[in-house]
Amino acid sequence: MSNPPLLSWLLIGVEAGATLAFALSGLLEAARKKLDPVGVCLVAGLAAFGGGTLRDVLLDRRPLVWVANPEWLWALLALCIAAMAFLRARHFAPTEKAMQWPDALGLGLFSASGTQLALAQDLPALVAVLMGVITATFGGVLRDIVCNEIPTALRDHRPYAVCAFAGGWVMVLAQLGGVPDALSLVLAAACATGLRVLALVTGFTLPRWSS
Amino acid sequence: MSNPPLLSWLLIGVEAGATLAFALSGLLEAARKKLDPVGVCLVAGLAAFGGGTLRDVLLDRRPLVWVANPEWLWALLALCIAAMAFLRARHFAPTEKAMQWPDALGLGLFSASGTQLALAQDLPALVAVLMGVITATFGGVLRDIVCNEIPTALRDHRPYAVCAFAGGWVMVLAQLGGVPDALSLVLAAACATGLRVLALVTGFTLPRWSS
Amino acid sequence: MSNPPLLSWLLIGVEAGATLAFALSGLLEAARKKLDPVGVCLVAGLAAFGGGTLRDVLLDRRPLVWVANPEWLWALLALCIAAMAFLRARHFAPTEKAMQWPDALGLGLFSASGTQLALAQDLPALVAVLMGVITATFGGVLRDIVCNEIPTALRDHRPYAVCAFAGGWVMVLAQLGGVPDALSLVLAAACATGLRVLALVTGFTLPRWSS
Repeated sequence: MSNPPLLSWLLIGVEAGATLAFALSGLLEAARKKLDPVGVCLVAGLAAFGGGTLRDVLLDRRPLVWVANPEWLWALLALCIAAMAFLRARHFAPTEKAMQWPDALGLGLFSASGTQLALAQDLPALVAVLMGVITATFGGVLRDIVCNEIPTALRDHRPYAVCAFAGGWVMVLAQLGGVPDALSLVLAAACATGLRVLALVTGFTLPRWSS
Repeated sequence: MSNPPLLSWLLIGVEAGATLAFALSGLLEAARKKLDPVGVCLVAGLAAFGGGTLRDVLLDRRPLVWVANPEWLWALLALCIAAMAFLRARHFAPTEKAMQWPDALGLGLFSASGTQLALAQDLPALVAVLMGVITATFGGVLRDIVCNEIPTALRDHRPYAVCAFAGGWVMVLAQLGGVPDALSLVLAAACATGLRVLALVTGFTLPRWSS
Repeated sequence: MSNPPLLSWLLIGVEAGATLAFALSGLLEAARKKLDPVGVCLVAGLAAFGGGTLRDVLLDRRPLVWVANPEWLWALLALCIAAMAFLRARHFAPTEKAMQWPDALGLGLFSASGTQLALAQDLPALVAVLMGVITATFGGVLRDIVCNEIPTALRDHRPYAVCAFAGGWVMVLAQLGGVPDALSLVLAAACATGLRVLALVTGFTLPRWSS
């Protein structure tokens, strides 16, 4: 990459934080469904790397993040084993609630970095924003499909992908306005995560079908 | 492309018509499942672009249709918003029946154009026909998987993918026989859509397991 | 390929055997779910080629096996038609049990060949092993997702993907130890299949959540 070193490090940090957050959400979902250890690792991995991998396949970027950096896979494996030991020891009852906060963080971080990557390939603004949304939401969508549920992102009427969408446009506007890359990453991620947290706190819901 | 302009325009028109038809089928399915607005857009988009995107990923063609032409995404977004406003205003009860006709049209158009694209890459006939079938059916398959149902294409015993299969072979034969590209597109699409409509009208079903 | 002819033939034989085994497992699952003939062919095809296709998409290898060798698709089509005729004639009751043995064979063969392919691209060991696991298990995962079930590989607590994982590491160690390619293929496949058969025979299960 020809990025300045600070941005490179920030990008890696952002991706690592988001990946960890989503892996945790996958772990908790797998625990709720009482999957076996293989299922736990696979659902956590799908939640963590699914969105970014789908984005990279659609954009034909190779190597994939987890192919180029296998240490992330080792970290995921260690995380899953540790979590299973911990969850068993403490009789932790994983709940939907506990999944919301790592999810909100991952949402913001992934939508910002996904949009950034797509803009760097000179893609049109809407496509770049959509790539951010895909990066942020498809980990969760794949996690729910594998667990045989209609993805929560599509049905629970609380803003989720919409926050990623907003964060993506903040990124587009920031880039157009000449804001430095590192700052626009922070701004976009903060906007998406902030909107999501706001929605969770206020209980705001999207309009329903009035059938 | 080195195609003559007429064929290029016809191809674009065919893809646009088929995409619209499938987007409508996704919209109605999302409405039936009472998904939220994000789910409506995503399921409509998956139904519309899913088959073509999967074909392009399998054939390693880039850029994807909707990446190269973001105006289609804008159109889809506008369509979804308009449909949600209209469906709410009129208390429209979306039914399985209403989904059949746009579906039949999209089936024919996509199987013809998908097979055509694959033949243009000098793929073997059966693979090209299969690519046509994938283009025509996987939008619907992905739509149903996301909505947590066994895809109708695989279980309802009424000919669906089979019609796309037949249309694909019409395309292969037409190309072998030296029929001009534009005419063979029309022939293949008419064959697949016609067979599907015939099957719907007559209630013909594929043989069942006799367990 | 620059492989010696024996290895090339062995690789083709291994892939063919594994593909047939998985196609059979898909066939039986589709029969259990009473899918229509199109569904039978598609689920059999997904089970047979899904894992390898996903591996090739992730590694950006083209052409796909079934694109380069359409005779495999013809064979699959013939197999499905023959099986449907045979199953109907004999009132065969397909059971979960009958699916286990072809599955165990396919598991070993695919994990060995998938890991081998990835190592040949100089990928890190863990990624190569994971590619073997994906090749071996995602045909079945996709088969189950399409049939609207939580994939058995993730929930039934009997070692499945774990056997593929072990087989992959046998391949990595064999390659590091300078074992000839053909022999290491046989060793790795025998290890994975053997572990799976052992697990089936002894009824060994992975540890459960103790919640």
